[in-house]
Amino acid sequence: MTIRPTIGFVGLGTMGGPMARRLVASGYEVAGHDPSADRARQAAAAGVTLGASPAAAAKAADVVLSSLPDPVAVRQAYLGPDGVLSTARPGTVLVDMSTIDPDTCREVAAAARTGGVDCLDAPVSGGPVEAGNGKLVFLVGGDAAVLERVRPLLLTLGTELHHIGPLGSGLVVKIVNNMMSMANVAVAAEAMVLGVKAGVDPQRLFDILSTSGGRSHHFLKRFPNVLAGDFTPNFSIGLSRKDVSLALAMAARLEMPVPLASTVRQVYEAAHAQGFGQLDMAGVTRLYEQWTGVAVRGAAARDARPGAG
Amino acid sequence: MTIRPTIGFVGLGTMGGPMARRLVASGYEVAGHDPSADRARQAAAAGVTLGASPAAAAKAADVVLSSLPDPVAVRQAYLGPDGVLSTARPGTVLVDMSTIDPDTCREVAAAARTGGVDCLDAPVSGGPVEAGNGKLVFLVGGDAAVLERVRPLLLTLGTELHHIGPLGSGLVVKIVNNMMSMANVAVAAEAMVLGVKAGVDPQRLFDILSTSGGRSHHFLKRFPNVLAGDFTPNFSIGLSRKDVSLALAMAARLEMPVPLASTVRQVYEAAHAQGFGQLDMAGVTRLYEQWTGVAVRGAAARDARPGAG
Amino acid sequence: MTIRPTIGFVGLGTMGGPMARRLVASGYEVAGHDPSADRARQAAAAGVTLGASPAAAAKAADVVLSSLPDPVAVRQAYLGPDGVLSTARPGTVLVDMSTIDPDTCREVAAAARTGGVDCLDAPVSGGPVEAGNGKLVFLVGGDAAVLERVRPLLLTLGTELHHIGPLGSGLVVKIVNNMMSMANVAVAAEAMVLGVKAGVDPQRLFDILSTSGGRSHHFLKRFPNVLAGDFTPNFSIGLSRKDVSLALAMAARLEMPVPLASTVRQVYEAAHAQGFGQLDMAGVTRLYEQWTGVAVRGAAARDARPGAG
Amino acid sequence: MTIRPTIGFVGLGTMGGPMARRLVASGYEVAGHDPSADRARQAAAAGVTLGASPAAAAKAADVVLSSLPDPVAVRQAYLGPDGVLSTARPGTVLVDMSTIDPDTCREVAAAARTGGVDCLDAPVSGGPVEAGNGKLVFLVGGDAAVLERVRPLLLTLGTELHHIGPLGSGLVVKIVNNMMSMANVAVAAEAMVLGVKAGVDPQRLFDILSTSGGRSHHFLKRFPNVLAGDFTPNFSIGLSRKDVSLALAMAARLEMPVPLASTVRQVYEAAHAQGFGQLDMAGVTRLYEQWTGVAVRGAAARDARPGAG
Repeated sequence: MTIRPTIGFVGLGTMGGPMARRLVASGYEVAGHDPSADRARQAAAAGVTLGASPAAAAKAADVVLSSLPDPVAVRQAYLGPDGVLSTARPGTVLVDMSTIDPDTCREVAAAARTGGVDCLDAPVSGGPVEAGNGKLVFLVGGDAAVLERVRPLLLTLGTELHHIGPLGSGLVVKIVNNMMSMANVAVAAEAMVLGVKAGVDPQRLFDILSTSGGRSHHFLKRFPNVLAGDFTPNFSIGLSRKDVSLALAMAARLEMPVPLASTVRQVYEAAHAQGFGQLDMAGVTRLYEQWTGVAVRGAAARDARPGAG
Repeated sequence: MTIRPTIGFVGLGTMGGPMARRLVASGYEVAGHDPSADRARQAAAAGVTLGASPAAAAKAADVVLSSLPDPVAVRQAYLGPDGVLSTARPGTVLVDMSTIDPDTCREVAAAARTGGVDCLDAPVSGGPVEAGNGKLVFLVGGDAAVLERVRPLLLTLGTELHHIGPLGSGLVVKIVNNMMSMANVAVAAEAMVLGVKAGVDPQRLFDILSTSGGRSHHFLKRFPNVLAGDFTPNFSIGLSRKDVSLALAMAARLEMPVPLASTVRQVYEAAHAQGFGQLDMAGVTRLYEQWTGVAVRGAAARDARPGAG
Repeated sequence: MTIRPTIGFVGLGTMGGPMARRLVASGYEVAGHDPSADRARQAAAAGVTLGASPAAAAKAADVVLSSLPDPVAVRQAYLGPDGVLSTARPGTVLVDMSTIDPDTCREVAAAARTGGVDCLDAPVSGGPVEAGNGKLVFLVGGDAAVLERVRPLLLTLGTELHHIGPLGSGLVVKIVNNMMSMANVAVAAEAMVLGVKAGVDPQRLFDILSTSGGRSHHFLKRFPNVLAGDFTPNFSIGLSRKDVSLALAMAARLEMPVPLASTVRQVYEAAHAQGFGQLDMAGVTRLYEQWTGVAVRGAAARDARPGAG
Repeated sequence: MTIRPTIGFVGLGTMGGPMARRLVASGYEVAGHDPSADRARQAAAAGVTLGASPAAAAKAADVVLSSLPDPVAVRQAYLGPDGVLSTARPGTVLVDMSTIDPDTCREVAAAARTGGVDCLDAPVSGGPVEAGNGKLVFLVGGDAAVLERVRPLLLTLGTELHHIGPLGSGLVVKIVNNMMSMANVAVAAEAMVLGVKAGVDPQRLFDILSTSGGRSHHFLKRFPNVLAGDFTPNFSIGLSRKDVSLALAMAARLEMPVPLASTVRQVYEAAHAQGFGQLDMAGVTRLYEQWTGVAVRGAAARDARPGAG
């Protein structure tokens, strides 16, 4: 018989919510916290015990998981007055799954260490669906021995678990990967609109490019939707801006020129400024459509007046 | 019994040479021309009849094929004093396989049409090896009926033949695809060096990224070589600069902003300016290595002094 | 008593028209040509003898002046079937005042030299007003002795005459100067909108910046108009795109990375794509206004709905 | 008889040191603090009373001045455990002269207000020399009435005092102005090297450009030094990187695309990465010299081997 660790869970939102529910469904005892009453209620309905603060959620926990939107939220959840570190006991393992900068992660870990608490960064690949059905992929940074202590737990939530290296290195890989993703999507948008503006049929262009050297994972994954005129966000332009910024901030700290990430950032910012922030990242296509008056997006939309978005 | 058309072949270089030789080996009669005596000699040794000019090579031809380095060479080969059009008979089909701008292609075709000569643009995917073993992929623009007349001939040289649309559209797709390729490679170089500069092991980083969302065809194809320290050019940085320029020129004519292609162009130009023009396009990694002092390229090179490139 | 040279004048447009008229008014005999019947008529009314072609205008000329919009027009006017070189006599001096690339200039000069005809490149600073009242500034490239032969003539049209160096060097300086101008204007637009978006009053911001380190000639010259909401083109965004392109083309030929000119080009292209091509170059401000919803342009315009441009 | 306020002064470095000494020389009582023992000693030698912490320096002060390198230092100096706010009495005026982001400034001011303490942001134009001889220019944000209380004091340090608007607006103007400065310098560097690479003599090029439309304040001010081969930093490339970043951060918060500032940032980063971080900002010229192998910098340096920097 396995003894399951008691879980504290901070951040019950788009990703954290499904994860917490899955843990409950898998037999874990989970004490959770989220500042949003709605989200908290949803989690409670699924069997999560609510804590009034991160501290409360962490109080009895063997492992604290967190899934938060940005560094400020992470810092507050761990280091704030009612933060996790104010109640976490020595021996507790903290696993932060947020996509944030490695510096904040290291700052939290340093503070945790003084109280005998261990940290891992474990950002994930996958969206809400994968968060709910245990199909996430984890990129983990931190001590290998600490990782072993939470491996079974993480494998309840995900199918793959890559240990990259020391603390923060999970985040580095995640940030670098996302930068590539956002860049490849923006490049594909620019290229598709250029080809269509030059007179080639959008679907024909996609069909050829999708078997040619210029293809990328996200081109194959997202541009069928673009052609169908579907910009339902799997990952929005607004969020893409933020993720590219993490790469820029990391590069700035390392004093490394990153002209491409820098331009990619500006392209998403322009798409956002033109009103497309809520669209899927492939909606950056719309920025180029506005600039050219052509429509890459599907036949239905093609009947709309040119340039009208 | 099939009657094989007589072939004129202009440009017997890296790509044209192997193609002409394959045609001879397949039983075609080929009259070829190349300004380089060396290249001409090589082709002659393989059975190509030499002509003193493009005009001479085209004189008795049913189909003229050409594979030339740039628009100036194409214009000269077709429109110049001893150009193909000065001898091509009505009913001849011209198939230009060069990667050039669609405008030059249309200019040649317009001149040809006045003499009852038909044109196709048929840029290829694949390198010298594929040119020699009949494994090229053709992207064809022009009249469908004209294409039918040369289909068997082109299928001697390639396995796939995509008819995109009207004249010039093969070139549009080729240019757009190459822009995506060059962009994806430069993005991957920037991302890999950023990750390594941030402390992650190059091989580990590649292994994860190659199964993650940021991956692209060229990342998977070229970065194993980068990690091995092998920058033998499959397609050089010097040529990459030129190919991205074709996309920029096309966008300029269409009055379309292309911020990403524009930055990609500058990154290859910088790599070229720092002395890496002869390397494979993935050698753009070296620019970033110089800027950061880290080595993504393989273990052997990693022993070199940092920043020494 | 001075004997005035007989003048051929090719291109009687926005700049060439006023210059030709001024020459006539100063006592020169001028034979002119322009493909536009309207322009030709206007020049004739002012006393210019019309020629049916550049060749006709140049036939009896001691000096041929030209002011043309682009390299294609220059090449045609000099090298074309009815071009200047077909009639120009040995000893004639050709002075091309067009803003074009130095290569085209050198190509024309090389052809001229074979017929004993000398060339100067003499692009100008100043607009139509200065062209008409003799206040232009000339940047001259070419042989110093040749320049001496036309100095009195050029000083009828301008007040300053800078001999830069060998043929083409007038153009180089002109192109480089224009690139700086366009860049400084775009930088100022970006900066002004950023400051206003951050809450500072536009006029107050201009007043301080106009006495601070960030100021430039064009900022001081053009932004009072921007604040007044006046975008009447002194030099349009459409033309700015082209002029920056000359710098890019020159850099490409010299294999020099120019990341800033490259981005400046894209900013003007985006302003053009958003419909502002007809505005003065400082109208690039409108692009940033659209992106932010703030109005830098004057009080009147400020009442318009935000972001509506 | 005027009663002079007692001054607390936090940050006695390059700028703060000379200012504090000037205040002492003008008859003010100054209690200062700097974490560097050296700097503190120097100030003490000039008559500044030393405090062991910002809190100690502020304890008896009517006005606290600060001149600090970055937001982290400002936050610590005011909000930290031994910070100014822990001892500042109600009615004290805080004048922060640091060049930081407006958000940090507003955060400090909000905390100060709860203790009845007023804040102004008053970033300065001018360097160490002007700081010592009272020739600074102040860009002030905050309440006008508060400014009146410190006007005589600030006019001891500077000759001009511009009240821009509400709290933070002095910083906005400063940041925007610096962005323009850095951009204009980088543009001038790119343009000068392009012109020289195209064959024009550097001095001749400067002479013409310095009277042409492309000129800017910093071009006229800094490029004579460049031509003399003198890159002694008045404001270094390293600091320029940081200042452009302030503009980028402000734009990111305001969700405004700033493609030019973004590219300017990367150009300085590249200059820094190539080893020129300690040079004056005009030393960005060296980056372009390396890329082209030409020397814009003066005759002496011109004898050095090309491309060797």
